Amino acid sequence: MIKVSVLYPGNDDATFDMDYYCNSHIPMVKEKLGPPCKNVSVDGGLGGGAPESPAPYIAMGHLYFDTVDDFQAAFGPHAEAIMGDIPNYTNVEPIIQVSQVHI
Amino acid sequence: MIKVSVLYPGNDDATFDMDYYCNSHIPMVKEKLGPPCKNVSVDGGLGGGAPESPAPYIAMGHLYFDTVDDFQAAFGPHAEAIMGDIPNYTNVEPIIQVSQVHI
Repeated sequence: MIKVSVLYPGNDDATFDMDYYCNSHIPMVKEKLGPPCKNVSVDGGLGGGAPESPAPYIAMGHLYFDTVDDFQAAFGPHAEAIMGDIPNYTNVEPIIQVSQVHI
Repeated sequence: MIKVSVLYPGNDDATFDMDYYCNSHIPMVKEKLGPPCKNVSVDGGLGGGAPESPAPYIAMGHLYFDTVDDFQAAFGPHAEAIMGDIPNYTNVEPIIQVSQVHI
């Protein structure tokens, strides 16, 4: 299993509409990616490691696929629509991490 | 549900012993945290968003708890033992993110 994590860095001016993300963006992404996308999870930042410190990421979305090839085949045709929706819920540019799920 | 993510940034000199992490560190952490730790997952970095780009994080470990208070109560008494094991599998200092799991 592989995991595509979309990490939205936090900063003083960062905005993120979690309601839109969970109820509009993610359902659209799932519909476009189809069955190759095995699972989705969404996290909202609460804090960092030190007491009262801000969360490094204001939000994180994770998409699970069997293989990187599956992700690329599913995402490629819909990249423009998916990326084009980002300004509707945030003003920050996400960082992408592709991972192998070990546990 | 809350999620404590331990993110290990990648760089040219970064080392990470995934075998030790999955088979020694994580089992020790689970044993020390006990039942309040509801689940654990581990990711190994494969790449970034651009083709052939490196993964922002060489590895990520995620611990799930019902509440932040549950995490703090379970982790506090074992922080020294858990943090003290880090040099046994990596030379990088992790970033901590505490998140609310929305999906």
